[in-house]
Amino acid sequence: MSRYVSILAGGSGTRLWPLSRSRRPKQLLALVGDRSLIQATVDRALPLVPAERILVITEASHAEDVSAQLPMLPPENIVVEPARRGTAAAVGLGAAMIAYRDPDATMASLHSDAAILDDEAFRRCLNAAFAVAEAGGWLVTLGIEPSSPHTGMGYIELGDPIGSFEGLVANRAVRFVEKPDSSTAQRFVQEGYVWNPGIFIWKVNFLRGQYARLLPEIDRPLRQIAEAFGTQREQETLQSIYPQIPVQTIDYGIMERADCIATIRSAFQWSDVGNWAEILALAPHDANGNVVRGDHTQLDTHQTLVYGTEKPVFTVGLHDIVIVDLPDALLVCSRDHAEQVKQLVEELQHDPRRASLL
Amino acid sequence: MSRYVSILAGGSGTRLWPLSRSRRPKQLLALVGDRSLIQATVDRALPLVPAERILVITEASHAEDVSAQLPMLPPENIVVEPARRGTAAAVGLGAAMIAYRDPDATMASLHSDAAILDDEAFRRCLNAAFAVAEAGGWLVTLGIEPSSPHTGMGYIELGDPIGSFEGLVANRAVRFVEKPDSSTAQRFVQEGYVWNPGIFIWKVNFLRGQYARLLPEIDRPLRQIAEAFGTQREQETLQSIYPQIPVQTIDYGIMERADCIATIRSAFQWSDVGNWAEILALAPHDANGNVVRGDHTQLDTHQTLVYGTEKPVFTVGLHDIVIVDLPDALLVCSRDHAEQVKQLVEELQHDPRRASLL
Repeated sequence: MSRYVSILAGGSGTRLWPLSRSRRPKQLLALVGDRSLIQATVDRALPLVPAERILVITEASHAEDVSAQLPMLPPENIVVEPARRGTAAAVGLGAAMIAYRDPDATMASLHSDAAILDDEAFRRCLNAAFAVAEAGGWLVTLGIEPSSPHTGMGYIELGDPIGSFEGLVANRAVRFVEKPDSSTAQRFVQEGYVWNPGIFIWKVNFLRGQYARLLPEIDRPLRQIAEAFGTQREQETLQSIYPQIPVQTIDYGIMERADCIATIRSAFQWSDVGNWAEILALAPHDANGNVVRGDHTQLDTHQTLVYGTEKPVFTVGLHDIVIVDLPDALLVCSRDHAEQVKQLVEELQHDPRRASLL
Repeated sequence: MSRYVSILAGGSGTRLWPLSRSRRPKQLLALVGDRSLIQATVDRALPLVPAERILVITEASHAEDVSAQLPMLPPENIVVEPARRGTAAAVGLGAAMIAYRDPDATMASLHSDAAILDDEAFRRCLNAAFAVAEAGGWLVTLGIEPSSPHTGMGYIELGDPIGSFEGLVANRAVRFVEKPDSSTAQRFVQEGYVWNPGIFIWKVNFLRGQYARLLPEIDRPLRQIAEAFGTQREQETLQSIYPQIPVQTIDYGIMERADCIATIRSAFQWSDVGNWAEILALAPHDANGNVVRGDHTQLDTHQTLVYGTEKPVFTVGLHDIVIVDLPDALLVCSRDHAEQVKQLVEELQHDPRRASLL
């Protein structure tokens, strides 16, 4: 009954442009500390689970960089999806691979592009969640104590407690709600809902049973792929069948429809590092509240992010500004417009002259 | 009785750093339009005075660039000061050279690093000032209608009118006051004082008489230098004597002490282009009030200056910000802190690692 970790490493993160690009997604960037987000995710898991039992599910265009950043993992644990088919397919592929190694295994599914500031607290929660999952009959999530009524988050309504595990209480999860409007989010925070960070823990074969019941059109091709594991047809089967799997998210496909969800209420600081303002809030800052990477000289500058490693950056009389200076593009953005960078990138996507910047 | 123009082209302008450098002073930069400030100064004078009668007084380190920018002037009209000895020496050297060519000449002394937006109005005023000077007995200044109670300016208190010249009234100038405090400047504006832009017009021999009376310690070496004009000792005399001239400004040395000053009250828009905020106010802007040089893409950006010719600049949610992106330095400054760039440059001057940026 071994414990595994499966890390999802697809996607890019356009709101961290111009640093994040399609070939340089945010999980490969060292945005909050000295380690990239995916390196920090693996570092955080290693005290609980040995490297041989940590899998990364990524896509072909990132596989080389992911491997280079994670030399501590066995090469065969870097799994390349033949196509992007959503998180239900990716999580299911990881579960099938783990079940092939150990049918009794329990797995944690983590995202590679989130920041967690208290590794110890995270591991205590994950440890408790493994214990709930191993007790049997539950799909387990971690639920984050909201730091604000963020409308971009998914929320979980908690029900009755189902017991204490490794010193932490697990509750039944009653309802999942994605991205509520502002007044709903405020009510959720007041009523004790928690954020859903997409951190899931379950026995692999219990999960596969849920797929068979709730997502048979995804379960079937995944079982075809799994039947070829260890044979000469393994790669050929994966390449031919995986791209045909229906696109679906694990949240909508499983979590919102299953009736056996338990949640561990968790107090560690978590962020999806969704935009530059989040990095300004999370990353270590100096006495003026400035977050600086590179050679920066300032007068009267506060709460400002400077990312520029090519040449010296000088700022005078600024507050709440984000400056990202790269060899091929300079972004200057006010902190409270950080979310609009996504819109800027969408405009660039329609301009063929800007293709090299994406 | 010919008319000459002598243009002062020393100095640098640290508040326009990082674009202005010791080797690339602001008068050589195209800050407001397509022509550099010194080119615009010559262009503005040419309809009044032919190129052969326009002199530029500059220093050795800028002479090559000045000549390259002003191919319309005869090479011998680019005069190189052997050392920086202040504006009294530089203006006196120009006057001596003009007097050598025509003892009855009248000259206008202009700065090369100011911006004037209405060339026609300027020429009407200059034309009237030439007429006042040629009438005899007056050192003439142009006085600018103040657009604000600027404390960095020199102010002139006007006295009684002395007559009408070419349709414009000249007044006696009663008093010069440099850089008043804020409440004094407000009173000056209310009481009809005008700004002193350092634009002077006089008969060269009348000026030299004032030097002999008020600045004999500067007049004497200048006459020694002038005695060698046209001889084989000309350069040698200039090189050996000029550096010994006492450092003094024309404003303090002559204008504040002479009792024969006339001022033409002038309504054209004038700026010393003292800092980036002035350029934001003066230069042509787009519908959002942005002043842009280079490849700029914006969302929700207003009253912002973008100077970046190396790579595309993207701005989101900014207002009243100055961005100057050069290959070796990036400055981002709020508009209302533009004056503090001078302080930033002073700090850099104390840091040997920054020498290449000055």
